[in-house]
Amino acid sequence: MVLGFMNQKIRIGMLGFGTVGTGTYRMLLDNREAINRKIGREIEISKIGIRDATKERALDQAHFTTDLNSIVTDPNIDIVVELIGGIDPAAELVEAALMHGKHVVTANKELIAKHGSRLVHLAKSKGLDLHYEAAVGGGIPLVQPLKHQLAGNEVIRMMGILNGTSNYILTKMEEEEADFADALAEAQAAGYAEADPTNDIEGIDTSYKISILASIAFGKQVPVEAIYREGISKIGITDIEYARSWGYKIKLVGVVDAVGNDAVSVRVHPSMIPNSHPLASVNGVYNALWLHGDFVGDVMFSGRGAGSDPTGSAVIGDLIDVGRNIVGGGSGSAIPYDMGMNVVPIDDIQSAFYLRLVVKDRPKTLGEISMVFGAHEISIAEMQMRTLPHDQGEIVFLTHRASEKAFADAIKQVRDLESVASVASSIRVEDKQ
Amino acid sequence: MVLGFMNQKIRIGMLGFGTVGTGTYRMLLDNREAINRKIGREIEISKIGIRDATKERALDQAHFTTDLNSIVTDPNIDIVVELIGGIDPAAELVEAALMHGKHVVTANKELIAKHGSRLVHLAKSKGLDLHYEAAVGGGIPLVQPLKHQLAGNEVIRMMGILNGTSNYILTKMEEEEADFADALAEAQAAGYAEADPTNDIEGIDTSYKISILASIAFGKQVPVEAIYREGISKIGITDIEYARSWGYKIKLVGVVDAVGNDAVSVRVHPSMIPNSHPLASVNGVYNALWLHGDFVGDVMFSGRGAGSDPTGSAVIGDLIDVGRNIVGGGSGSAIPYDMGMNVVPIDDIQSAFYLRLVVKDRPKTLGEISMVFGAHEISIAEMQMRTLPHDQGEIVFLTHRASEKAFADAIKQVRDLESVASVASSIRVEDKQ
Repeated sequence: MVLGFMNQKIRIGMLGFGTVGTGTYRMLLDNREAINRKIGREIEISKIGIRDATKERALDQAHFTTDLNSIVTDPNIDIVVELIGGIDPAAELVEAALMHGKHVVTANKELIAKHGSRLVHLAKSKGLDLHYEAAVGGGIPLVQPLKHQLAGNEVIRMMGILNGTSNYILTKMEEEEADFADALAEAQAAGYAEADPTNDIEGIDTSYKISILASIAFGKQVPVEAIYREGISKIGITDIEYARSWGYKIKLVGVVDAVGNDAVSVRVHPSMIPNSHPLASVNGVYNALWLHGDFVGDVMFSGRGAGSDPTGSAVIGDLIDVGRNIVGGGSGSAIPYDMGMNVVPIDDIQSAFYLRLVVKDRPKTLGEISMVFGAHEISIAEMQMRTLPHDQGEIVFLTHRASEKAFADAIKQVRDLESVASVASSIRVEDKQ
Repeated sequence: MVLGFMNQKIRIGMLGFGTVGTGTYRMLLDNREAINRKIGREIEISKIGIRDATKERALDQAHFTTDLNSIVTDPNIDIVVELIGGIDPAAELVEAALMHGKHVVTANKELIAKHGSRLVHLAKSKGLDLHYEAAVGGGIPLVQPLKHQLAGNEVIRMMGILNGTSNYILTKMEEEEADFADALAEAQAAGYAEADPTNDIEGIDTSYKISILASIAFGKQVPVEAIYREGISKIGITDIEYARSWGYKIKLVGVVDAVGNDAVSVRVHPSMIPNSHPLASVNGVYNALWLHGDFVGDVMFSGRGAGSDPTGSAVIGDLIDVGRNIVGGGSGSAIPYDMGMNVVPIDDIQSAFYLRLVVKDRPKTLGEISMVFGAHEISIAEMQMRTLPHDQGEIVFLTHRASEKAFADAIKQVRDLESVASVASSIRVEDKQ
């Protein structure tokens, strides 16, 4: 009986053979015996779908096909592993795979962020698994612990460093006193940033990931377009130095707060994180998710959030789970969630702020600025001033929590003041405990 | 159909209603609606088994019975939640529950560490679930991520702070320059340590937990009695200060190293952890597991490792999983492992050491000690000396990695030297990266 099981292989069709695909393939090869033992049956990659047949591959050409559709419709394939990324053609292929009765494992954050609810419902209705641990946080277990071990909690707050590229850049700026452009160039040279880094540095990648985590935690799909988003390209080394002087690190974070009973605030932006917060010491390409639940209290998960091997590790973890379900004869473990999470606009929440102004060096400057803050009910917690060349000065504030709308209105007015040369930067600040 | 499902409740029998029991009960009450929705059926605690019927309870007496056996044999109960702790009578009750076709959720670390293999095999053979997330790390997801999301990895090393009581004591010593006895008294006053703290401070509790984690990671049961164990009662404030001067924190850790292809080293002892290591900043009652896998690289999980609410959170996470399996009609997700993990004796591994000696203040002292080290091939990395009252001195060494056996032999010889008054302490040291 056991031998019979072992002979009936579980067949994988892989879509895409880039960074994650090669990591997944290598892990399956290196740890084959243990993986098969844990599933209880032999697993085999039967086909790999690629788009460019002329590229040099580490593998025999016989494995490859450019006919991706032939994989998702192949009656001999049990699990489709989608590692193409993006929506087109990944969405259609995943849907077709499910329609043809195949379990799906995907690392595609954009796909799940935008079509997760629909695809998970489809998987559930067919009694199939749809797993996507690798879509968020690379090798760090996040998606499944949130769905399972933490599922009894009402999540009150989540905050994540979910993009390795921007964290690498901010860490380089901090450690080497490099400015943004140099740190970005370094990240590109090290292979941690792409030629067009927009997705990473503008927080788009983070918005997909935090959308997925929020959707799981709150049980409804968070529309990506409802997520307020700000990137790190305007962060200067000067801001990092002021942050340090007050005991903070600047990190690009995805933040989710429960608001009342049926709404959430979801946003992506740089934040000043107090050194005492565990996220402040997550450096380089490391990612982390910090979560506060009503019963579990604070928990944090950290590790390598991207790259061939860690992301491969998450894909294989999912494959082992799906394989076990196939062997055990479960009915598919997809946990459906509906559309329509109620996301409150950024204007409706409260934040503390760091604000750096370049001003003209004249007597009334500080008074005028303070009057504007006062008129908008924004109170100042800390302030530093210094003289700059050419009769200019720099004033830097930390505010107490204030309405986002009031702060935005105040900034508009401050910018128009005769005495203010420019609003150099404004960054949200996490409370010290 | 859906309504029919919802009417057919999942019935829980709970054994024990202490700290974890009340946390579990409260969470089930507070978050009832979300929990039922996630399971897809209503969950209900039908019976609670207690040993002392005279104790005052927050609940109606009708729920309680002192006949624990009536719970594990009750044909109307679907899941038995064992929160008694210890072996007797928990082992018999869990076995009886499984024999009577009930899924089991337990928070019992000693039970799983000592009887895990047998009970999980039994559960599997009956097509039942046996979950024990709450047995290790309180509310932190550790057991299931290791079984699932990280399952494709060859685990190379794990290191965990798994006992909140000792971490609280060591943190107090560090932060308040308190000595061990005062910090222990403080922990007892704060309810973090029991009247008899032996299990916590001597590393017994940690040895159960690291045994469970090692058994999962390496696929065979690690016998608790094969685990080398040293507690924290001999750590002095002086040691904490020297550690700080070299950039280390002292933590009680459970450590697992893969040794060759089919053996592990598993041990529990205080270690000097470099400040740069993420475990060094896990303070107070917080627990954490740091893991290095061949593909995932470094990952870390941290959070509240004990207490009513966090441990309740883990129990409820397991209950939701088991409930889903009942609703989905799976065949039980227990992952069996066999007995007989090969654990290498502590003498066979290598460690770096911190060593503090009280010596007689005379010319040949340092030379004599150095000769002993040299004879045992132990080389010194760092040294500090200072004069003590009464013609004594203190010499403190950090060694490079050396054989445990060589170090133990050297210590014996050093202790017998004319010039050495006492071996005040020796503590293992983790390498700086």
